[in-house]
Parts: sequence; structure tokens; C-alpha cells
Amino acid sequence: MATKGLAIIAGVGPGTGASIARRFGKAYSVVLLSRNPSNFEPLVQEINESGGHALGISTDVSDAKSVNLAFDEIANKFPDSPVAVSIFNPAGGFVRKPFLELTEEEYSSAIYSQAKGAFSFAQRAVPLLLKAKGSIAYPPTLIFTGATASVKGSANFAAFASGKFALRALAQSLAREFGPQGVHVSHTIIDGVIDIPRTKQWVVPGEDSKLSPDAIADSYWYLHTQPRTTFAFELDLRPYLEKW
Amino acid sequence: MATKGLAIIAGVGPGTGASIARRFGKAYSVVLLSRNPSNFEPLVQEINESGGHALGISTDVSDAKSVNLAFDEIANKFPDSPVAVSIFNPAGGFVRKPFLELTEEEYSSAIYSQAKGAFSFAQRAVPLLLKAKGSIAYPPTLIFTGATASVKGSANFAAFASGKFALRALAQSLAREFGPQGVHVSHTIIDGVIDIPRTKQWVVPGEDSKLSPDAIADSYWYLHTQPRTTFAFELDLRPYLEKW
Amino acid sequence: MATKGLAIIAGVGPGTGASIARRFGKAYSVVLLSRNPSNFEPLVQEINESGGHALGISTDVSDAKSVNLAFDEIANKFPDSPVAVSIFNPAGGFVRKPFLELTEEEYSSAIYSQAKGAFSFAQRAVPLLLKAKGSIAYPPTLIFTGATASVKGSANFAAFASGKFALRALAQSLAREFGPQGVHVSHTIIDGVIDIPRTKQWVVPGEDSKLSPDAIADSYWYLHTQPRTTFAFELDLRPYLEKW
Amino acid sequence: MATKGLAIIAGVGPGTGASIARRFGKAYSVVLLSRNPSNFEPLVQEINESGGHALGISTDVSDAKSVNLAFDEIANKFPDSPVAVSIFNPAGGFVRKPFLELTEEEYSSAIYSQAKGAFSFAQRAVPLLLKAKGSIAYPPTLIFTGATASVKGSANFAAFASGKFALRALAQSLAREFGPQGVHVSHTIIDGVIDIPRTKQWVVPGEDSKLSPDAIADSYWYLHTQPRTTFAFELDLRPYLEKW
Repeated sequence: MATKGLAIIAGVGPGTGASIARRFGKAYSVVLLSRNPSNFEPLVQEINESGGHALGISTDVSDAKSVNLAFDEIANKFPDSPVAVSIFNPAGGFVRKPFLELTEEEYSSAIYSQAKGAFSFAQRAVPLLLKAKGSIAYPPTLIFTGATASVKGSANFAAFASGKFALRALAQSLAREFGPQGVHVSHTIIDGVIDIPRTKQWVVPGEDSKLSPDAIADSYWYLHTQPRTTFAFELDLRPYLEKW
Repeated sequence: MATKGLAIIAGVGPGTGASIARRFGKAYSVVLLSRNPSNFEPLVQEINESGGHALGISTDVSDAKSVNLAFDEIANKFPDSPVAVSIFNPAGGFVRKPFLELTEEEYSSAIYSQAKGAFSFAQRAVPLLLKAKGSIAYPPTLIFTGATASVKGSANFAAFASGKFALRALAQSLAREFGPQGVHVSHTIIDGVIDIPRTKQWVVPGEDSKLSPDAIADSYWYLHTQPRTTFAFELDLRPYLEKW
Repeated sequence: MATKGLAIIAGVGPGTGASIARRFGKAYSVVLLSRNPSNFEPLVQEINESGGHALGISTDVSDAKSVNLAFDEIANKFPDSPVAVSIFNPAGGFVRKPFLELTEEEYSSAIYSQAKGAFSFAQRAVPLLLKAKGSIAYPPTLIFTGATASVKGSANFAAFASGKFALRALAQSLAREFGPQGVHVSHTIIDGVIDIPRTKQWVVPGEDSKLSPDAIADSYWYLHTQPRTTFAFELDLRPYLEKW
Repeated sequence: MATKGLAIIAGVGPGTGASIARRFGKAYSVVLLSRNPSNFEPLVQEINESGGHALGISTDVSDAKSVNLAFDEIANKFPDSPVAVSIFNPAGGFVRKPFLELTEEEYSSAIYSQAKGAFSFAQRAVPLLLKAKGSIAYPPTLIFTGATASVKGSANFAAFASGKFALRALAQSLAREFGPQGVHVSHTIIDGVIDIPRTKQWVVPGEDSKLSPDAIADSYWYLHTQPRTTFAFELDLRPYLEKW
């Protein structure tokens, strides 16, 4: 197992993160970072039982110290595994509120969960990805999960949009800095409601009107497999019925 | 062969179009449209000899009449084949010149080859794609090939950028109109030099510094296979060394 | 009057064009181009009677020949007047229709009225603007009027968006080519309903919910007066109540 | 003086902020916020001596407490003055460094100085602007100063771009929330080197190749005077020689 490639996935709950973990778990050992162990424990078990190799590490991705501890543990547990892919798929920071009702804490939290968390994550992930070049079949890949709010600030979304815009700025900056060094940096724009347990009760009119988390995971895998001659930076994904 | 899906590809030379034709030729019968038969003849032969099924039709895609004749012939030759995918990958209209040296003909030609050609192509392709829903494994797909000039007007590129911007407008409009009807409309931004016979002599510093046409074709195939829950509209593709 | 600066305005009806003509007519002689003389005749009279100097020339701006004749006449009538500003404010090409009901003529007309008209207009205007440098108080200025459809392709707007995207590509390309030569090229995005005679019956809920053509004209004048140290390329204008 | 309108300007040094203060000081009482009193003291004196009315308040705009104290003092000193305009023109957070050399503090500082500072500022300014409606000649106005990095993440600019993207997200969100309530929210993109004391030694080839801070201030004034029928959200400003 030691020389098998590694996928590090931050932000793993029962939704997109789980699909991504399963998809990358077919090819790589996967490390799952989430604050609450109950978010990754069933998934770790599932992947390990089905022939994969998964490890969960309780991590608060909005806290640099916690992120650093997680990466220290990864270095410890997988000293020889090239890091094939790192995915920042943060859950936190979503808030929808009239601007004047937002608290400073809510605004900060959106920025922390998204942009600052991504900063800490990338600072540890990028050196590992740079080092992995040549040891794995595909270019080492760093993917950030964005949303509609990554490209559009809307009424009641001042906090979340600030976090998501900042995350996209980070992703673009890293793509321009580390792309030429062979690391594939991508950003996705998830534009719509994802079909996960948390949204089961949300009514979106029409059949197949929510994004499939497995299809999102497939798109991440596709991005990962692109050769360095032909990197995509940004991919927008939405249900066919979505207004945009 | 009659019920096999059909892929219609406009703009097929020895470059990207050929890679797209080979890629989609693995799954579908392919119809290749190009003004000059010498552009598709070797490819038609190659695909037919390797177990696929290809037909070339000499077509001037910038001329509505010629496009209509081509689609009439397709209807004739493949009366029962659902059209799984239509790809508009125009070659014409590229011109790089100081604005005041551009002729009216050059400006018109850029618009004709790109936007107006795409209009004629889409008017015939869309009804076929709508009709194909449910008859093929994936959502019927309409893809337009864009370029850097699709999102940036530059000095010396007034004509080409006008054509490419207009093509993107058309693609977006169609995505918003026919996406909800189940047709997957996508637009790609090819940002860099493609590694094809015509560009062999072009020096782009660095290893692997040109886009792989096969990788572009793979990305088109990937777009085609996305489920309707999770459509991408736009994909930007560039070599890792490209400045952007 | 001979050495007074000149403003050339293409697309003058009883709406925005008229406001622009009145605004620039306070400082410059104005030439008004419109196909139908009834569009500019009352305005020419009004400006001339109020101490300004206006000339109307019947011109089909979507037709290069007609545009060239108009500029020949301008050269004739104003041999010594530096061209301070040229404004392309086209009226034609608007069509809102399901894509499959669009005729080739409608699609072409949108492109012709917008992009190709602008091309012909700019080819004649740019040399005059370059020549005017230093003879007028402000940098010579070329402004193109855009719309929501300049940056967003929507269902039922395939033709109009194609024309408006292409126009924006042209404007960007010219700004990047002639800005460094001292000509100020700008593009405006008029996002909403303009309060003109033609839209009087259109109901847009709320007070002051339509764009003021005089305020649009003021913004054009403001753009014109910017020094070359501080050029704006793009200005989006919308009523405060507009959804965007 | 009590009922004269008020302009609150955050981020005032010897550059753009000073020009903005002078420009708005012709019409309004001005409050200048800057951490270091030496940044605003000469300016306050200059404005007061030339017939205007200025007050400086030492404020750390990246610190919510400090911002709140400043607004408390404003309420105290100007209990009856309608707030005509609030401008967030932050100086802090600029850093240009390879990503892996950025410290967490530098990344946080960029976000704090830009986005979080703007959040605190807007939370106090917006209620005052809403209240001022009808008491001043123009719609109350909130302007945020952006930069090239507001719309483009680049190598070595991960921190600054994150802050500037987030600031733009905030501005967009506020424009969409408070525009319909009659507050004019705008965002400018300053694309180039501003001609201020700090950049005097910077060589930018060509004559007039730096942005004029007075011209920037004029553009802010122009935005402020737009009627609510015709609000601009975004204005990009650059020297004619700037590459973009």
C-alpha cells in the first residue's frame, strides 16, 4: 500500500465529499478530513471494506493549527505515498441573511471556512503535489469546490459570496503559479442544489433537478486525468433545469 | 448500423476535428463536414477501416445553403439514426491584422465562419438532438469550440474575436433554451496552440507546451457523457505552461 | 464653426441617440446618422434653433457603402473640424424569438446592424479620431452602446446576443489597439428599459424604474471628458430597481 | 454646517483618498478614517482652511471595534448631517509573494484589510445612507475601491486577490440588496499604477502612464451624481498605455 498514490479530501460529509472519496478511493488511498468524525467514519469503513484504503482525521479546516496537525499525521501515516490529488470541498460558512442582520462572526466564519481554510490546506498540499510529480499516472491535482456564489454576489449572500469569491481568487492564483510547475489546479462552480441527504426535503421542480454528487465526483476524476498539455481550470456544473 | 447513434462534426481537418471524429467514431457513426474533401477523406477511410463508420460530406459551413444540403443528405443516409452529438468546430475566419488593414470581407468572413455557420448548423442539429432524447445512452449533446478570443478582444483580433464572441453568445443562448429540454449544450475555450500538423513548426517554449487534440477530444467525450443532473456549460483548456 | 470639434452619432431616434445628440451638441457640431430622416430631422432643427449646429445624414449603418458615403459627406461638410467623439448607438437587430423560429435573415440582421455596422463605422471614425488628437480639449473618444445581451446569452435572444457580444468584442479589441494611441474607446452596458417614447407603454413596476436617456447621455459625456491617465472601458448602467 | 451632507471616507493617505476627500469636500463635510493621524492631518487642515469642513478620526479599518468607535464619534459630531456618501478605499493588505512564502498572518491581513474591513464599514454606513435618502441632492452612495486583483488572481497575488475578490463580492451583494432601496452601491477597478507620492519613483514607460488620483476622484463624484434611474455598478479605470 505504501507506494500507492494518496488523495486528500477536506470537507467530507454524507454528500459530495463522500462521492469524491468513493471515486478517488478506487485508485488511491484516501484521507478524509472533517471536523466531526461521524461525518467520515461510515465512509472510511465502507471504503476499507470494499477493498480500498481510507483514513479519517478529525480536522477543523477553518483552523490552520488543526489543518497542520492533520497534514503532520498524513506525513506520518503515509511517508512514502505520493499525493496524487488534494481536494478542498468545504462545507462551512454558508449563511443566507439580510446584510444588516449578519454578525461579524458569521461574516468571518464564511471567510475562514472557505478562503482561509483553503489557504492553510493549499500551503501544506502544494509541496506534496509538487513532490509527487512523476510518481503517479496523472499530473498531481488540486481542486477547489465553488458555487454560484463564487461568481455572483447576491442579496442576502454577502458573507457566503465573499468567502467563495476569495476561494476562487486563491484557486486562480495557484493555477497561474503552480500550473507551469506541473500541478493541475482547478475550480468548479456547483450551480444548483446537490442531491444529498441534507437536501432530500428540498423541493426543486422537475425530474432530475438536483446535481448528482456521483456525477460531480466523476467530473473531478475527469479533471484529474487530464494531461498537462490540456488542463481545464474551471468547470461549471448545473442541472439541466437550472435557471442561470 | 441503422440504429447506431450518430455524431455530426462540422470543421474537420487534420487537427482537433480528426481527433474528435476518431473519439466519437468509437461509439457512433460519424458524419464529417468540411469544405475540402481532402480534409476528411483519409480520416473517413481510417475510421471505416478500423471498424467504425464514417461519412464525409463536402460542406461550406459558413454558407446556410451548403449546411442545409449536408443535413438533407444526413437525413437521407441515416434516416433512423438518433443524433447523439453535434459538434461545431469551425476552422475558418481566423485573421490577425491591425484593425485599419482589415477588409470588410475579412471581418464578414470571421463572423460567417463562426457565428453564422454555427447558427445554420444549430438550426438543423437541434431538432435532431431533441428527437434523439431517450434513444441513446447519454443526453444528446451540442458542443461549440471556442478560443481565447471568445472571452477577450485583443489588438489585431477585432474580426476573429467578434466571430468567437458571437459564437459564444449563440452557445449560451442555446444552452439556456435547450438545456431545460434535455439537450446538453457546451462551449469550450481552447486557450493555446493545438499540436496539429499546421502548427508543427510553431515554437512554443517548453515541453508539452501545445494542447493535445486527442485530449481535447477526450474532454468533448467527457462532456457528452455527463448526466442531465450535472451538465457543464463551459470548459477552458490550456497547456500547463500557457500564460493566462 | 469650421474648427469647432465634431461629434458623429450613429443610431439616432427619439430615444438615447437624441439625448446624446443634445448633450454633445452643447460642445460640438453634431452629425446624426439614421436610416430614416424623420428620426433626426426634428432633432437637427431643435439643436440648430437652440444655438447648436447639427447635420443629419440618412445612413443605413448596417451597410458599409452607406456608412462610407456618410463619412465622405462629413469630410466634405466639415473639412477642418477635428472629430472629438464618435458614438455607435445602433437601434437595429433586436429580435426576441425561440431559436428554431429565427430566420437566417433575422440572425444576419442582428449581426449586421450591430457588429458589422460598428466595424464599418469604426473603420472610418478611428482615423479621424487619431487625427483629432491635440486639437480638442479631451481625448478623442469612441463609444459603443451595449445591452444586457452584450454579456449574457439567453433563451430567445440568440440573434441579438450574438450581435451584441460581437460588438463588445470589437469594442474591446479597439480599446486595446487604439487606447495606447490616445483614443478613448468605451463600451456601455445598458441593462434595463430606457424611458423613451417607444417604451412609454411598457410597464416596469416601481417609480423611476426605467433608465433616463439624458442620464445615459451624461455618462457618455463623462466618459468623453476622462483624461488619458484614467480611461474607463466599460460602464454598466441600470435602474436601481432592476434585477441583475 | 449641521445639515450639510456628510462624506465618510475610509482609507485616506496622501494618494487617492486625499483626492477623493478634496473632491467631496467641495460639497460635503468630510470625515477621514485612517490608522495613522499623520495620514489625514495635513489634509484636514488643508480642507478646513480652504472653506471646507473636515474631521479626521484615527481608525484601524481592519478592526471592527475601531470602525464602530469611529462611527460612534461621527454620530456624536454630526448628529443631524445626512450621510451622502461613504467610500471604502482601503490601503492595507497588499502583498506580492510566492504562495509558499506567504504567512498565515499576511493572508489574513489581506482579507481583514479588504473584505472584513469593508464589512464592518458597510454595516455602519448602510443604515446612515438609507436614512439620508431624500435629504440630499443625489442618491446616497457607497463606493468600494477595487484593483486589477479584484477580477484576476495571479501568481504571487494569492493573498491580495483573495481580499479584493471578497471585497467585490461584498460590493455586488450590497448593490443587489440596497440598490432597490435607493442606495447607489458601486465598485471601481483601478487597473494600473496610481500617480501618488509613494509611486513617484516607480517607472512606468510613457507619458501620463499612471492613473491620476484626481481623475479617480472625479469618477467617484460622477458615480455619486447619477440618478437612481441610471446607476452604474462597476467602472474600470486605467491609463491609456496600460496593458490589459
